[in-house]
Amino acid sequence: MSLLNTTLQQIVPQDDACRAAARARLEQLIMPHWALGRLMDMAEDLAGMTRSMRPPVARKAVVVMAGDHGVAASGVSQYPQEVTVQMVHGFVSGGAGCNALARQVGAQVVVVDAGVAGDLSALVKAGKIIDKRVAPGTANMHTGPAMSREQAIRSIEAGIEVALSMADSTDVFATGEMGIANTTPSSAIVAALTCSAVEEITGRGTGIDDARLQNKIAVIKESLRVNKPDAADALDVLAKVGGFEIGAIAGLILGAASLKKPVIVDGFITTAGALIAQALSPVSAQYMIAAHRSVEPGHRIAQEKLGKQPLLDLNLRLGEGTGAVLAMNLVEASVRVLTEVATFAEAAVSTADK
Amino acid sequence: MSLLNTTLQQIVPQDDACRAAARARLEQLIMPHWALGRLMDMAEDLAGMTRSMRPPVARKAVVVMAGDHGVAASGVSQYPQEVTVQMVHGFVSGGAGCNALARQVGAQVVVVDAGVAGDLSALVKAGKIIDKRVAPGTANMHTGPAMSREQAIRSIEAGIEVALSMADSTDVFATGEMGIANTTPSSAIVAALTCSAVEEITGRGTGIDDARLQNKIAVIKESLRVNKPDAADALDVLAKVGGFEIGAIAGLILGAASLKKPVIVDGFITTAGALIAQALSPVSAQYMIAAHRSVEPGHRIAQEKLGKQPLLDLNLRLGEGTGAVLAMNLVEASVRVLTEVATFAEAAVSTADK
Repeated sequence: MSLLNTTLQQIVPQDDACRAAARARLEQLIMPHWALGRLMDMAEDLAGMTRSMRPPVARKAVVVMAGDHGVAASGVSQYPQEVTVQMVHGFVSGGAGCNALARQVGAQVVVVDAGVAGDLSALVKAGKIIDKRVAPGTANMHTGPAMSREQAIRSIEAGIEVALSMADSTDVFATGEMGIANTTPSSAIVAALTCSAVEEITGRGTGIDDARLQNKIAVIKESLRVNKPDAADALDVLAKVGGFEIGAIAGLILGAASLKKPVIVDGFITTAGALIAQALSPVSAQYMIAAHRSVEPGHRIAQEKLGKQPLLDLNLRLGEGTGAVLAMNLVEASVRVLTEVATFAEAAVSTADK
Repeated sequence: MSLLNTTLQQIVPQDDACRAAARARLEQLIMPHWALGRLMDMAEDLAGMTRSMRPPVARKAVVVMAGDHGVAASGVSQYPQEVTVQMVHGFVSGGAGCNALARQVGAQVVVVDAGVAGDLSALVKAGKIIDKRVAPGTANMHTGPAMSREQAIRSIEAGIEVALSMADSTDVFATGEMGIANTTPSSAIVAALTCSAVEEITGRGTGIDDARLQNKIAVIKESLRVNKPDAADALDVLAKVGGFEIGAIAGLILGAASLKKPVIVDGFITTAGALIAQALSPVSAQYMIAAHRSVEPGHRIAQEKLGKQPLLDLNLRLGEGTGAVLAMNLVEASVRVLTEVATFAEAAVSTADK
């Protein structure tokens, strides 16, 4: 059986008994009932995911999947395609946004070439990045499918392989991405999988002006018209209007879920990847944590489809996994609440009158 | 001159040149313009507060001001008053919510008796808490002023003294509080200083039922009617319908502002303290960071009066400084963005086309 199918079979729901045990303890902590709100919701979730009353969260990693997009040629971004390669070098040298925020929370930054158009062989040879390149960038979805169905599967399996290779050294995964033009395929994926209007979904990405936004919307509409992705077939959607890094993100999420480990989903692009993962395995969503609400208008719609409420809302629109890394502190905090706060009985504090 | 007046005179605005220098660097970081949104806003603020392009934030402390309230006798809380003393013991033993979250971010927890009704002398003698007790709890504001004007000044100066005593060991302050019934005086303060209806402000605190909520509203209305606090005189408001720990929080904030150090304001009660500080020194608000939006309905109104947008919204309603401690990670992260992310020139990354 293929790695993808094996992985899908290994994804099982959260453990209800562990959830219940965590909930029972949280309800007895020396504070008014559930007074730490969403931290307590998350602690219950983490117990259910990890099957533990002490969910391990110390070893954290953000996986930045990089890929290029043929649709960049259709004028949807204000940055030239070579920025993808330049930013991969930025991640390796430690000077990018995700590096700074990862250092704050003590997370490892793992960079993966899932399909960058430029030459990254020196970084691969030096062991600085992981080579999972499916092809040097997708084809332009504006005029035909972004990739073949085989490439779509390959990109997802690349992400699964990365997750499995990190299993022994990672407690919490976070999704990151880099790829000039990649809000465009992400918008197409979200429009297709949520049956939403392209105008509702599509935003300014790195900050394009009105004229380019109108062009971007037209390109996405035409891409959907030309390719007719089948909303009931996530692999078809990924192949027709997706990207290699987006497939790899879906795979990373499926891999993490198969390992029963939490995976923090970052912004709009990685949420598009999460929708692919959810479509392939609805249960995988039980292992996802939505980090933040980005500026992209489609993010809310995508998160609603996932059934997730984001933890943060800070006007972020960088990607790279930056929002997911920020949320790692909240994940750690929620475990501290579950494991370090005393109960009324332990602390001999008077309870509320009934 | 009194400590309060000296302190008020020492509070000066943020430094515009430092703000501008930080903004100039942030606009050149290798990312789309201002793509880390509110983290970048905060980095600019921190540079302006601390007069530094490397705002120091490593040494963090949450100061938990504890006090009791005569109005507890009017049935506004579901917890008995002795819980204030019990929770102070909880903070000292390290088993409370604020302790767990402070450990996550590496913050010191400093506990201050600003006016607790019970006996805490053993903890004071053991050096576990700071004794700034104004009196063993306020009088019941339901039938007369909570304290005298002299006591109000004394409570504020207690907070200033704590801030000044920590100046050499603290980069970032966070406000915390403990005091059974203290959402009641906080609601009265917020209603008075924002000229809002008591019904709009008042919430369920630790989780009271509908009947007790109606009683709480009636008690607050009667307290305002009996005492007629002068909204133009913050000391009068604090004296008539305040609390010792609320005054001490106002003082801590004023002290931090006079030291040009950031102070993270936690939930509803400490925001009531922040409103007192703002009324005494409008400029002091430039040193405040609003941590989160609590469940209490008056919190939004109070934060609007402060001119602050909270960083987090996680359904918290515990107090103890828990939300402020959570926000410390975001403060640190914002400084990482300012100091650790490379500029386009430093990293040789292509900029957007114009």
